[in-house]
Amino acid sequence: MSLTQFSASISSSSSAFLGQRSTNSRTPKVSVRARNNLICKCIATSQTEKTAYTTKVSRNANMAKLQAGYLFPEIARRRSAHLLKYPDAQVISLGIGDTTEPIPDVITSTMSERAKALSTLEGYSGYGAEQGEKKLRASIASTYYGDLGIEESDIFVSDGAKCDISRLQLLFGANVSIAVQDPSYPAYVDSGVIMGQTGQFQKDVEKYGNIEYMRCTPENGFFPDLSNVSQTDVIFFCSPNNPTGSAATREQLTQLVQFAKKNGSIIVYDSAYAMYISDDSPRSIYEIPGAKEVAIETSSFSKYAGFTGVRLGWTVVPKELLFSDGFPVAKDFNRIVCTCFNGASNISQAGGLACLSPEGLKAMRDVIGFYKENTQIIMDTFNSLGFNVYGGKNAPYVWVHFPGRSSWDVFAEILEKTHVVTTPGSGFGPGGEGFVRVSAFGHRSNVLEASKRLKQLYK
Amino acid sequence: MSLTQFSASISSSSSAFLGQRSTNSRTPKVSVRARNNLICKCIATSQTEKTAYTTKVSRNANMAKLQAGYLFPEIARRRSAHLLKYPDAQVISLGIGDTTEPIPDVITSTMSERAKALSTLEGYSGYGAEQGEKKLRASIASTYYGDLGIEESDIFVSDGAKCDISRLQLLFGANVSIAVQDPSYPAYVDSGVIMGQTGQFQKDVEKYGNIEYMRCTPENGFFPDLSNVSQTDVIFFCSPNNPTGSAATREQLTQLVQFAKKNGSIIVYDSAYAMYISDDSPRSIYEIPGAKEVAIETSSFSKYAGFTGVRLGWTVVPKELLFSDGFPVAKDFNRIVCTCFNGASNISQAGGLACLSPEGLKAMRDVIGFYKENTQIIMDTFNSLGFNVYGGKNAPYVWVHFPGRSSWDVFAEILEKTHVVTTPGSGFGPGGEGFVRVSAFGHRSNVLEASKRLKQLYK
Repeated sequence: MSLTQFSASISSSSSAFLGQRSTNSRTPKVSVRARNNLICKCIATSQTEKTAYTTKVSRNANMAKLQAGYLFPEIARRRSAHLLKYPDAQVISLGIGDTTEPIPDVITSTMSERAKALSTLEGYSGYGAEQGEKKLRASIASTYYGDLGIEESDIFVSDGAKCDISRLQLLFGANVSIAVQDPSYPAYVDSGVIMGQTGQFQKDVEKYGNIEYMRCTPENGFFPDLSNVSQTDVIFFCSPNNPTGSAATREQLTQLVQFAKKNGSIIVYDSAYAMYISDDSPRSIYEIPGAKEVAIETSSFSKYAGFTGVRLGWTVVPKELLFSDGFPVAKDFNRIVCTCFNGASNISQAGGLACLSPEGLKAMRDVIGFYKENTQIIMDTFNSLGFNVYGGKNAPYVWVHFPGRSSWDVFAEILEKTHVVTTPGSGFGPGGEGFVRVSAFGHRSNVLEASKRLKQLYK
Repeated sequence: MSLTQFSASISSSSSAFLGQRSTNSRTPKVSVRARNNLICKCIATSQTEKTAYTTKVSRNANMAKLQAGYLFPEIARRRSAHLLKYPDAQVISLGIGDTTEPIPDVITSTMSERAKALSTLEGYSGYGAEQGEKKLRASIASTYYGDLGIEESDIFVSDGAKCDISRLQLLFGANVSIAVQDPSYPAYVDSGVIMGQTGQFQKDVEKYGNIEYMRCTPENGFFPDLSNVSQTDVIFFCSPNNPTGSAATREQLTQLVQFAKKNGSIIVYDSAYAMYISDDSPRSIYEIPGAKEVAIETSSFSKYAGFTGVRLGWTVVPKELLFSDGFPVAKDFNRIVCTCFNGASNISQAGGLACLSPEGLKAMRDVIGFYKENTQIIMDTFNSLGFNVYGGKNAPYVWVHFPGRSSWDVFAEILEKTHVVTTPGSGFGPGGEGFVRVSAFGHRSNVLEASKRLKQLYK
């Protein structure tokens, strides 16, 4: 919110508001003064500041710990600024990981019909179960966890994995300690800060206090050295990883589950990219024996079916997962879902069910195959330019190393010189410094054009 | 989750899981034992409890404070139990406030088209702005707050008011004190408990510690005596009220705003039923001069357009609303929305925009008019039986007094003898004891049939 916006809106609002609606008002005219003074405040001196009306409610100290904006809106802002500077530029976004390809017709037809049917007595539905429609829960359980012992009642359908991460943080509360991969998807850390699980941001190390950052580098194959990781209550672990694009192997995940078991930790396993796996890396943490006693898994239709705007995901909380006092975690998560959420949109849920039909699954695999071809083009591009390139094989993200350079500088250089938006690695944590994440979500022509421009820049 | 379900699912899961997936397992066989013992635990002795694997993560103490289930799922459970007992009963639900009438075609057509268009290059959209689509934000601002100085940028589109209440609680954090109307919609209290704003539940008074319960009774016209209300940071205020059905007058709301201003409190004003107002009670808190400096407003399409399943709401956080240090509340809410949420479904948002077209507004008013006729039937029914009946005029809820009786007893009596589901007043707080809420959401034939049966029961 800029100061200009601020004062403009205040002045435009005052007249209509006070002119037409002051009947029965007992509010003293001081509020008008305050508003006028607030305009002054926004543009000038500190003396007038004191007269702007403020409530007596203290700002949540945890919110004040957060650094800058959430990463992806920040990138969107930089992109907009770039467009202002170069209004005619053909900007190509390989930045925020937003899907670009149309949703297969077999899926949208079902959503379209469900929407239309809401106008009929038979097709109308109001509040659904907060946990999701029974058929969809059952279908997710059988499709993704068929032989792993995960059942319909373990599945909580949601409006997306990001939203579920925050609901899981609500479930855990302020008094847990957390570990994250470094680099990692910023929602884990930021939601932990908001919940009060962390200390202040320490500028020297670019880390929040009281978070265990598990460094993932090319040297350790992007899997943390667990012998150096402190015990925490919760371990957020994303595989295939956003942003590094690496998928943990079965052996690595077995280590992780054993590590959690030894420490009594709960793993929150983010498998939002599991369908991108090409090799025999596990698609679910529950492929690892014993995982149901230590792990929650969260996932999403966003990157499988282009549902980033439709909003549909799910979280698995096995009934075998127990707090230290023996209380089932699923029971508390159920309470969170019932109290703080009201279920995903019925239309989106119809779409999810269509995704899991034989035709829907085939259509999703085709879309994923398309993005995987994009990934190959991007990998080939950077490889041909002599960069060290990671990820890509099992994920729609390519993690490119620019040793010794600042990620934001590289981000700015690429944007300035090629009009291509990427994501600076340091936005995912200090371990991402010196890297840039290139997303494979894009139309083919754009990916090819971006490739051409990047080859020009770095030839 | 029943114990039977628990053990059944555990045993069914074990075989497939361990039989087919134990390759590369380093997990000791103790996990099998643990699982078997867990089955024992669920049905029997305390000795075996110790051997079930538990994590070392402590259950969030705030979750443990919560009493029973969230009210409405609890009612759904009782309804299911009733159906088991009387499988042939024609149960009529006037309980959880779920809309029943089909969504007008002008609205579903638009959603249907938007869904279909997601299969085209031009019509596809991925991540939208977390705050909602610009056109919808602008349309909400102009339709509901046209001359009140609320602008597009003050509107945050969401997946419903209940979800936004939790996001607001995240924004405020654990260290604020809250006040609620008593009785009130349970999400305010329960989300406050989850956030850690409250003390333990005190069984003797049926209240949580550190919540200010503002008693609303027939005697005070369901508006609290503010001279008896302690200062709190946040005041949740719902008008037209769920469950009492009363709408606060302009004079009362002016008192409330002045009270908040004097105390430096923030009002969270829930106006989800505003379009049901028949008299000249304010539709928005921003009709009261000065409210923008002290109030957030949350609302929803659920009860206007039958969107309980489609999921769409909004929250207004005026830029004039400041924390004690002068920091804009909207800026922190924006950060919450960007970090913990990813926007409402694009299809639902298309529906919202259709709701606000001239035809959509007319269609919504027709649906509301229909439910208001239902309300009149219910009021007439209880009035004819000699009950004291409140609400109804400006809300789809009728609040019926059963002096000296337990709400749950009356709920059970009505369910048992008429197969009609209502909501026990005490589920909304101790101030609701002795009342039952009857919802006007229902097909006409059901409302008439319920009326007939109630007249039989209480003649």
